[in-house]
Amino acid sequence: MRPIKIAYIGGGSKLWARSFMQDLALDPDLSGEVALYDIDVPAAERNREIGTRIHRKPEARSEFVYTVAGTLAEALTGADYVLISILPGTFREMRSDVHAPEAYGVYQSVGDTAGPGGVLRAMRTNPIYEGFAAAIREHCPEAWVLNLTNPMSACVKTLYRVFPEIKAFGCCHEVFHTQELLCCVLREATGVEAGRRDIWTDVSGVNHFTWITGARYRDVDLMALLPEFVERHFQEGFNEAGPVDDYLTNTFAYANRVKMDLWRRYGALGAAGDRHLVEFVNNAWYLRDPETVRKWKFALTTVDWREENQARQIADSVAMAQGRKDIPLRPSGEELVRILRGLVGLETVVTNVNFPNRGQMPGIPLGSIVETNCVFTHGAVSPVTAPPLPLGALALVRRASDNIDLTCEGTAERDMDKLFAAFLNQPLCSTLTMEDARALFTQMCRDTWEYLEPYYPKL
Amino acid sequence: MRPIKIAYIGGGSKLWARSFMQDLALDPDLSGEVALYDIDVPAAERNREIGTRIHRKPEARSEFVYTVAGTLAEALTGADYVLISILPGTFREMRSDVHAPEAYGVYQSVGDTAGPGGVLRAMRTNPIYEGFAAAIREHCPEAWVLNLTNPMSACVKTLYRVFPEIKAFGCCHEVFHTQELLCCVLREATGVEAGRRDIWTDVSGVNHFTWITGARYRDVDLMALLPEFVERHFQEGFNEAGPVDDYLTNTFAYANRVKMDLWRRYGALGAAGDRHLVEFVNNAWYLRDPETVRKWKFALTTVDWREENQARQIADSVAMAQGRKDIPLRPSGEELVRILRGLVGLETVVTNVNFPNRGQMPGIPLGSIVETNCVFTHGAVSPVTAPPLPLGALALVRRASDNIDLTCEGTAERDMDKLFAAFLNQPLCSTLTMEDARALFTQMCRDTWEYLEPYYPKL
Amino acid sequence: MRPIKIAYIGGGSKLWARSFMQDLALDPDLSGEVALYDIDVPAAERNREIGTRIHRKPEARSEFVYTVAGTLAEALTGADYVLISILPGTFREMRSDVHAPEAYGVYQSVGDTAGPGGVLRAMRTNPIYEGFAAAIREHCPEAWVLNLTNPMSACVKTLYRVFPEIKAFGCCHEVFHTQELLCCVLREATGVEAGRRDIWTDVSGVNHFTWITGARYRDVDLMALLPEFVERHFQEGFNEAGPVDDYLTNTFAYANRVKMDLWRRYGALGAAGDRHLVEFVNNAWYLRDPETVRKWKFALTTVDWREENQARQIADSVAMAQGRKDIPLRPSGEELVRILRGLVGLETVVTNVNFPNRGQMPGIPLGSIVETNCVFTHGAVSPVTAPPLPLGALALVRRASDNIDLTCEGTAERDMDKLFAAFLNQPLCSTLTMEDARALFTQMCRDTWEYLEPYYPKL
Amino acid sequence: MRPIKIAYIGGGSKLWARSFMQDLALDPDLSGEVALYDIDVPAAERNREIGTRIHRKPEARSEFVYTVAGTLAEALTGADYVLISILPGTFREMRSDVHAPEAYGVYQSVGDTAGPGGVLRAMRTNPIYEGFAAAIREHCPEAWVLNLTNPMSACVKTLYRVFPEIKAFGCCHEVFHTQELLCCVLREATGVEAGRRDIWTDVSGVNHFTWITGARYRDVDLMALLPEFVERHFQEGFNEAGPVDDYLTNTFAYANRVKMDLWRRYGALGAAGDRHLVEFVNNAWYLRDPETVRKWKFALTTVDWREENQARQIADSVAMAQGRKDIPLRPSGEELVRILRGLVGLETVVTNVNFPNRGQMPGIPLGSIVETNCVFTHGAVSPVTAPPLPLGALALVRRASDNIDLTCEGTAERDMDKLFAAFLNQPLCSTLTMEDARALFTQMCRDTWEYLEPYYPKL
Repeated sequence: MRPIKIAYIGGGSKLWARSFMQDLALDPDLSGEVALYDIDVPAAERNREIGTRIHRKPEARSEFVYTVAGTLAEALTGADYVLISILPGTFREMRSDVHAPEAYGVYQSVGDTAGPGGVLRAMRTNPIYEGFAAAIREHCPEAWVLNLTNPMSACVKTLYRVFPEIKAFGCCHEVFHTQELLCCVLREATGVEAGRRDIWTDVSGVNHFTWITGARYRDVDLMALLPEFVERHFQEGFNEAGPVDDYLTNTFAYANRVKMDLWRRYGALGAAGDRHLVEFVNNAWYLRDPETVRKWKFALTTVDWREENQARQIADSVAMAQGRKDIPLRPSGEELVRILRGLVGLETVVTNVNFPNRGQMPGIPLGSIVETNCVFTHGAVSPVTAPPLPLGALALVRRASDNIDLTCEGTAERDMDKLFAAFLNQPLCSTLTMEDARALFTQMCRDTWEYLEPYYPKL
Repeated sequence: MRPIKIAYIGGGSKLWARSFMQDLALDPDLSGEVALYDIDVPAAERNREIGTRIHRKPEARSEFVYTVAGTLAEALTGADYVLISILPGTFREMRSDVHAPEAYGVYQSVGDTAGPGGVLRAMRTNPIYEGFAAAIREHCPEAWVLNLTNPMSACVKTLYRVFPEIKAFGCCHEVFHTQELLCCVLREATGVEAGRRDIWTDVSGVNHFTWITGARYRDVDLMALLPEFVERHFQEGFNEAGPVDDYLTNTFAYANRVKMDLWRRYGALGAAGDRHLVEFVNNAWYLRDPETVRKWKFALTTVDWREENQARQIADSVAMAQGRKDIPLRPSGEELVRILRGLVGLETVVTNVNFPNRGQMPGIPLGSIVETNCVFTHGAVSPVTAPPLPLGALALVRRASDNIDLTCEGTAERDMDKLFAAFLNQPLCSTLTMEDARALFTQMCRDTWEYLEPYYPKL
Repeated sequence: MRPIKIAYIGGGSKLWARSFMQDLALDPDLSGEVALYDIDVPAAERNREIGTRIHRKPEARSEFVYTVAGTLAEALTGADYVLISILPGTFREMRSDVHAPEAYGVYQSVGDTAGPGGVLRAMRTNPIYEGFAAAIREHCPEAWVLNLTNPMSACVKTLYRVFPEIKAFGCCHEVFHTQELLCCVLREATGVEAGRRDIWTDVSGVNHFTWITGARYRDVDLMALLPEFVERHFQEGFNEAGPVDDYLTNTFAYANRVKMDLWRRYGALGAAGDRHLVEFVNNAWYLRDPETVRKWKFALTTVDWREENQARQIADSVAMAQGRKDIPLRPSGEELVRILRGLVGLETVVTNVNFPNRGQMPGIPLGSIVETNCVFTHGAVSPVTAPPLPLGALALVRRASDNIDLTCEGTAERDMDKLFAAFLNQPLCSTLTMEDARALFTQMCRDTWEYLEPYYPKL
Repeated sequence: MRPIKIAYIGGGSKLWARSFMQDLALDPDLSGEVALYDIDVPAAERNREIGTRIHRKPEARSEFVYTVAGTLAEALTGADYVLISILPGTFREMRSDVHAPEAYGVYQSVGDTAGPGGVLRAMRTNPIYEGFAAAIREHCPEAWVLNLTNPMSACVKTLYRVFPEIKAFGCCHEVFHTQELLCCVLREATGVEAGRRDIWTDVSGVNHFTWITGARYRDVDLMALLPEFVERHFQEGFNEAGPVDDYLTNTFAYANRVKMDLWRRYGALGAAGDRHLVEFVNNAWYLRDPETVRKWKFALTTVDWREENQARQIADSVAMAQGRKDIPLRPSGEELVRILRGLVGLETVVTNVNFPNRGQMPGIPLGSIVETNCVFTHGAVSPVTAPPLPLGALALVRRASDNIDLTCEGTAERDMDKLFAAFLNQPLCSTLTMEDARALFTQMCRDTWEYLEPYYPKL
């Protein structure tokens, strides 16, 4: 294998970067350079140290050199692969995204994809991605671009709008957890132990609002096992990753009650964390108030928590970078390195990613960003045609997709009316009067104006 | 011209029938038979008397014989045209459709197309229309079928589902009023007096949620005149048909404030009465409570009013049928007879109707029922391709169209889960919790069970 | 009515210009200026004289001033309507287009749309139309552009490629003759005398290869009368415009045997002159050799004849311009002025024109230029959705449409390989070996190199 | 793994059956029953013996029982997989298919898919496949059906028409040879030795007229290597499977000159044997006469040869069945058993098959049978979206696809006009006059009337 150059943009303090470096180190076939670029230079430097230390470990099987690039151009030049994982704005902006709507009775469990927070975050992120697209066109037009940033669909759509020939897609691990849940369904019904890569799922939808319409392990139809499983577990909930009440202490945990509820009503299985799914439907359903959230057994992730958590992670990173803390070397379960292996031609990988609709998702406009299975191999990404979604679920996805497209049109045209229309049409804004919606939108723009001002007309 | 046979199904006490008979009497070129069929036989007999008396008037210019058919088959046999204008159920059911949701804070201005009332009404109506489609296939498969019943889209869709070769479309006059409003816009800006048939409008959408995306009088772009017009009138409102405060006493009147508001936000002009438009968007916007309704200057039509009004109309009809009251003979402004003139080949008529999407409305699935302009002439109905709707408006229409299709799928399959999914996805149900939505749906089904029981599984 | 400015590009010696001027003079409602621009200045000046004389006639009902513009820009500036009717190249080039293929056994009856001649003519014309599109964008972007030049589809496609917001369509009278034929069908079967504007036809296809799939006069289905008509006339032929043997002396005449033959095989009625239809199918069918042509009762129009005829027409024009010959003032039967009347808002006109496919022609790619009915009124051109063509005919039209699109792609990219691929795929080239096709293509390029050289790579 | 039942319909004397049995025997993970059904009972019995003997060999790694089913129903009942590999008619019919057109100057290299022979063969085959579809619906509606019979597209289309829920696809090995050619391209340019499963190809088209638009081995773009390869080999030809002049003695061999020629003209690589490709383009190109065929270095397979060859194969089979001849046990290189492994969930296989278009092939109507890559795993077949074909090639494929669809419409409706229209539109009939085409079609129908008479109207 020819050595490869990977440009890693952002990712300063996030787990994504570390799990990627670990998987990369464990791969026996790849080698080359990872060029780190982050506007937070110390974060990039920490990652360089961590990466370097990881590769020094005796279990490391591949050779990669980690460098810090002084400029975006430097990182991109010569890159074969570009990973982008940035935070658009700071926690200050995120605090407004997530919590400002609460004053209007709008609760968000994540607030980074759909809902009022998703719109504002897209408004901040899309202009930055315009810059990425232009830089990639200039410095490495042939590179494959793997986006990890949210709002996923908006980021990928912006890349393709600015540079239509770009080779980009977006990776997200939410579906994987639902696949693990299906493995539990299989085990309960048949006793068979299978991992998520041992089953097949038909996946379609938009990022964080994906659905599984078919699932099979060998000749076992997993969908046919769902009625009994849901009957047994709906009331109490079920957590494929731990105790069912994890959600009480782990902000990312949930008991899959939302997912099972959607399945009962739509005949397709919502395939993202419950925390994400709820943000794509009327807020009166699952996010009405903290009590409703508790009843459905998931949690609202606060920005306070995120800030504290990040401080812990940075401390960890510093300790690792300085060699004061060991960096365990084990597979992360993520697909990034497997996808790379596919792209360089070491194997044929089929997994779900976000990609412009070329026909792979019936019922959604061509060009909208959809999440379905794709085949990755030898430098080709080929979308796999998904079976049609049941109309009830498709209607919800179409609404989500229209909202993303309208948000992107609004950011592309710097048109605040379109952006407000997209804001207003968020299912999480269903209970807002127009006056309240307007007031909230204006306030959220003001709260985050520092990052919007360079691009948008005065409010 | 060969004499024609028109089967008129239903229409017992409605104004539609009378205005149709008047226009028919005034047409110099048509002649033939109108066969009336109504399950309310006395109503059909009254219409026969009224029709006969109309044609005896000296101003009458055509010769039509009015008969009462004893059976649907008798009415349809030999018919060249079939008009259907029925009330599915009674005021008892309509009362539940319109008012039962109020207990849950859901107000409806009409309640016969969208919203909870629209879904229940479709559930009652679609099975009846299955029967009509089968009867038409048997007795007059070549006849053109003009539907006047609401919910319009669901009726037309059911006709085509059961008898795909049917030649059917649906007529509605809501767009006409918006065209009249545009004539006022023209007059205010230029002093030119033009009637609605003197201007051109690009119309698209679904019934009662249609939009005008282009409007021109000669070389005057009427859309370009809207900013100034809306600026001047938005605050106070504007009524093309009378004093701006008519809505206080006339349950059908409105001040176009909703329409102007939609135009300001979406860049396309909502083209139905405000009473209808508001039922296709979140109830928090315009239908939050009676006070909000007043602020937007339209009215909630109560079933009490409808009952009283019908009693008056029946009394009028009786008086007319018995010759105690004069039947004025003047053009109604409706398009039905003009469309007939087109269909028989007397002229080429372009007007908006509801028809399966053959590609005339971009962005909406093929086969869904859309309202656009069509050309009527010599036995052909040819849809006119509409310019694309702005995405913000299209997103709302897509949701409406999906809801109709899902409702129709649910009634076709007698699937209460799909019907509840359609119910839940109504914008007017946006503020309902799932529990409330379920309770309301169940109650409304029970209220109207007499008409549902023959078709649907037990609740 | 506001006076209008019409820019008339080209049209020096053609009948189109004269019949347009006549119809314009007879219109009681229009007035304004016709700015003539022609690279053949004396021709433009003759037309100015003729136009001016026409308007001086007592029967003239409108007021139009005819001017000669010194530059294209001058003609276009301020224009409301632009008519384009040019000859790309001279008779020298046309001689190669039409007759060079004969050495290879390929006969063409027209040679200006499809077949080898059509490809070469598109290669000369498209670059000129790139210039027109750019000039219109600069000088009168809001004007409606009526194209009369062949190859029609290629011209219109080029206009839209270069200036996507252009408001352009292409007018052709070929369908009208088939409508007149249908009037004869009606008369023979029922005795009813009707003109072509008294019947309705469903038209679809590409220019010069259009089809009628439905035709009705009032409640008479004209398609249902065809079997008997064809049975009676197929053997001898039938000419709606004169004696059946006109084709022996009139190079434009034909006996509709081809049209009837296509109808018998495909169930749809070819709707252009037989001379045109034959150029879209295998040359072995109707154009095998002069004897086959005679058998099918149409004629091959020679360039000798065109040259002589043009000399006669120019002599006529000179005589008319100088007042030595009377200019009869009667309606031409063409639709141009009627279309103008529609566009200015005087009436609603439905007629067939060439327009980008927005969905009006099922089965043909969106954006390809198709010929269907359109509604013209108040500045709007709205395509009318055509019923689907029978698959057999659709397959032939798809091939024609693909060839046009491939030719246009080849001219746009100046790619001789694509152009040769389009040449080779012409049905009229069906019998050519690749070597012969290559030799013929090269020779035809050389013959017309003077007009290709500025644009294409060396052969 | 649960044991599986495979119904094998037909396949009496063909290599397909034997190579399948060999691969099956070599698979370490599968086991079960193969139920053989053939109207030629001795042939089925021979296969049973051969299969049984194969499994007795020490190298055999799986356990399969071979049985002969007395009826189709018996074979299908309980089947998990159905393979169909029949000969519709006898060599007598095939002789007419292939050789009758020669009297009219139409040569065919295969005559079983496109061209006059392809149409006649579809006319015989489709009604038989109607029966298969009905029997599968009745006896094993959940089984996966693998079709091996030609004309491939027509067979698969008929299965889906009669039983829309069928789970069927068609397997063909033609693309594999082109992949092997690309491995030669790689080796010549880089020295790298790779097998066809080590590279990725983007495949699209219709069966036997497939194209490769992209091909990569790791980071090597194989398409970029083609110019040099073709430059070097076009004149002499190149045979990936043996000496370049094999075609002189091996009727299935060819020197890829046609493929290279198509690539030079269309920018995509024809991806089937040259013998097949030539049947989808004008006969004047490569099949003009035997001399042209020789020049392009492929051969016309005669039915004489096929008869002799079959006699040899039967003799071989008899010898093998009786144990007089050894049955070598080595992998065939075919994909059938690999696909089975995918379907039972042992691995994820991506390979090209024929499947209804769900959007995987842009530019071809939905529902037409296309050949693209598909993912096979755990009971799911998921089409992979192909990149668009260059327009020149797409135009040729569209014509092929239209011809197949028209043929299938004609056989479905027993409509001889549509069938003749499909016949006439075959590129191999390009040089025929209509009279000759009609005479040939009639003669070929008469020649094979024994197999057509039960289904079609009298000629």
